[in-house]
Amino acid sequence: MTATIVTIGDEILIGQITDSNSGFIAKSLDLIGIRTNEMISIGDDRQQILDTFAQLQDKTDLVIITGGLGPTKDDITKKTFCDYFDDKLIINDDVLSHISEMFEKIFKMPVSQVNKDQALVPSKATVLKNRFGSAPGMWIKKGNTVFISLPGVPYEMKGIMEHEIIPKLIREYDRPFIIHKTILTYGQGESTIAERIADWEDSLPEFVKLAYLPSPGRVRLRLSARGNDKELLEQTVDEKTASLTQIISDIIVGYDDGETLEMMVGKLLEKQKQSISTAESCTGGKIAQVLTSIPGSSAYFKGSIVSYSKEVKIDVLGVDQKTIEKYSVVSGEVAAEMALAAQSILKTSYAIGVTGNAGPSTDDTDEPVGVVFIALAMPDNTVRTEKFNFGQPREKVLDRAVNKSLEMLREEILKKGR
Amino acid sequence: MTATIVTIGDEILIGQITDSNSGFIAKSLDLIGIRTNEMISIGDDRQQILDTFAQLQDKTDLVIITGGLGPTKDDITKKTFCDYFDDKLIINDDVLSHISEMFEKIFKMPVSQVNKDQALVPSKATVLKNRFGSAPGMWIKKGNTVFISLPGVPYEMKGIMEHEIIPKLIREYDRPFIIHKTILTYGQGESTIAERIADWEDSLPEFVKLAYLPSPGRVRLRLSARGNDKELLEQTVDEKTASLTQIISDIIVGYDDGETLEMMVGKLLEKQKQSISTAESCTGGKIAQVLTSIPGSSAYFKGSIVSYSKEVKIDVLGVDQKTIEKYSVVSGEVAAEMALAAQSILKTSYAIGVTGNAGPSTDDTDEPVGVVFIALAMPDNTVRTEKFNFGQPREKVLDRAVNKSLEMLREEILKKGR
Repeated sequence: MTATIVTIGDEILIGQITDSNSGFIAKSLDLIGIRTNEMISIGDDRQQILDTFAQLQDKTDLVIITGGLGPTKDDITKKTFCDYFDDKLIINDDVLSHISEMFEKIFKMPVSQVNKDQALVPSKATVLKNRFGSAPGMWIKKGNTVFISLPGVPYEMKGIMEHEIIPKLIREYDRPFIIHKTILTYGQGESTIAERIADWEDSLPEFVKLAYLPSPGRVRLRLSARGNDKELLEQTVDEKTASLTQIISDIIVGYDDGETLEMMVGKLLEKQKQSISTAESCTGGKIAQVLTSIPGSSAYFKGSIVSYSKEVKIDVLGVDQKTIEKYSVVSGEVAAEMALAAQSILKTSYAIGVTGNAGPSTDDTDEPVGVVFIALAMPDNTVRTEKFNFGQPREKVLDRAVNKSLEMLREEILKKGR
Repeated sequence: MTATIVTIGDEILIGQITDSNSGFIAKSLDLIGIRTNEMISIGDDRQQILDTFAQLQDKTDLVIITGGLGPTKDDITKKTFCDYFDDKLIINDDVLSHISEMFEKIFKMPVSQVNKDQALVPSKATVLKNRFGSAPGMWIKKGNTVFISLPGVPYEMKGIMEHEIIPKLIREYDRPFIIHKTILTYGQGESTIAERIADWEDSLPEFVKLAYLPSPGRVRLRLSARGNDKELLEQTVDEKTASLTQIISDIIVGYDDGETLEMMVGKLLEKQKQSISTAESCTGGKIAQVLTSIPGSSAYFKGSIVSYSKEVKIDVLGVDQKTIEKYSVVSGEVAAEMALAAQSILKTSYAIGVTGNAGPSTDDTDEPVGVVFIALAMPDNTVRTEKFNFGQPREKVLDRAVNKSLEMLREEILKKGR
């Protein structure tokens, strides 16, 4: 069973909005064994919509369309829909009473004609209830293809996918199994890994695919197996993961995708009843923000002092002015003093101190753009300090500094835990 | 002149990665008058790539392809490229020496064969230099269509777009003008606005398009004018914006889009020689991180104290323990003390204090998940405090808290500036 996802909206084609709906839909379909073979974004244009539908007709089992619905856009999309299916618009009473209720009870204002018109749907459509908004989803089959139209507002689309479409697909269609396994690695590049595991990669059976997903500082390796024999798929993926682990155990830091570095670090800290704080200069609070993106992080994350200016480094953290004068504000010595200060002021077992030049310009230091010093204060009050050159541009420097800090932290906690 | 953007990568089709490259490319093209008429995402599949190219051939002027390059993916994409253009791969010496230099000087490791092979490009291709990575961009014309292939790593792709492709397109092609104007409104829904401005909308000339871009709490109205007479376009957009402003002046809060809130706030602070700091609880450093995402923000951002634990609030910020006992840690009183503490400790003209329940669980407070108190300490040492309920989930609460803080800051700076 294959699907194509179509997004309608001029705002996407001029780059004003990033389409995150397609990714959510693809992920939901993938989990139930439906393969997305293409994603297409087109404009709010009648002819382009008709052409796209015609081109997909009978070539794919499922076309899921988002966007183009909503009080000011209904006109073109719904009429075009009707024309394509040779249908007419009729009022759906369930949708009408849902809209009236929303306006009366939640918005506490009268329903306008524009909103009442949102209850107009093609007569052949199965209506999919929108719990979080007024425009309903619509499901129409033509030939061998099911066309599903959804509103573009993300949480409305998600609600209809979760509560209506996925259950209906599971009920009504036979699907193959898809098993994914993701292996997280740190410290080596895509090409180095590729060379190390070349023989193993060649040994993969036809129904198992390997993908490299690189991002600054880390590479995820994803195995995907697809077929009708669930047991065989699971067994093969397990075996192949085990043999891969033997080859590159030195760089594997975890499995499965949901696990991010900040989650792993959080679990370790919680398990060992340790705590963490940060003193950040160039990263501007990003390490703290990443650590606290995890629900429940207050169990181990205590706080952070972002010292973007020299004055805050000296006055609040208590970095020695002489250290700054002697080594400059971007130096391992300053990073170490920052880490120790955070550890002592915020009373934590570990503390990260970061100072560097994220660019585009360098201020009052001799170090080039991209140079970052990361210091990690340890429970025994020793400090591990490292110097990196993360290159350019600014966002890459910041991302890599955050990653490296967490990686160093993870390494050290694991050492102590032994 | 029209463009189609093609993204290659299985990871996108299973929803593991959201494609943000296409939006960036579309926006860059739009700014120089090139209209993107479609975006397509396909898999790492030779036949699908060939079919997609053939389908676009001579139907669009420009096909910009991202992804499918990189040491482990080069094979399929570059060979497919060569086949489509009836070409062969040759070593490009400039690229080879760039790669060697990167490995020797920055990574300080020997260049592997896999990376050397990244210097292989189709012989007919114009090579586009990749400052930030090893895989070069490629530009090949066939028939009436130019095909451009770029690596999928966002900052590498961005570098090539900015430094190579956009300048080349401006130099070599005649393009129409596109003028956008975005009007930000606050407080009324899409359908209400649509009814209020219906007559005005009908009065728009053919070459001016209006789009509604709704998001929670606000609607942006975007006017786009396209044509060859730049003066006429600008004059019409100005006139129509002025007449629209007369009709809905009560809900308009600003104009123009590319400006993010953090950019606007940064410019205002810099112009008025004011500074800002934050004391953050639930936002965990995110406001600081957003403010420092702007290059040059050290001119006005001094620092932040992230007080995730009660102890840090009391010991470092000096929030009165009695205030916490009386009003709880999630209260306007605590937010206000936090803001004043940051202002005084970090010595800034303004300071933001934030405390709230981001969820999923509430700790030791009676306030439900979603409740956030934001306090803004002003240069005269007064504090403006507001209570919000941002609902769920956690990421929405944090995003809205950051936005609201910056919005309050902007309002107050504008008031003082009058």
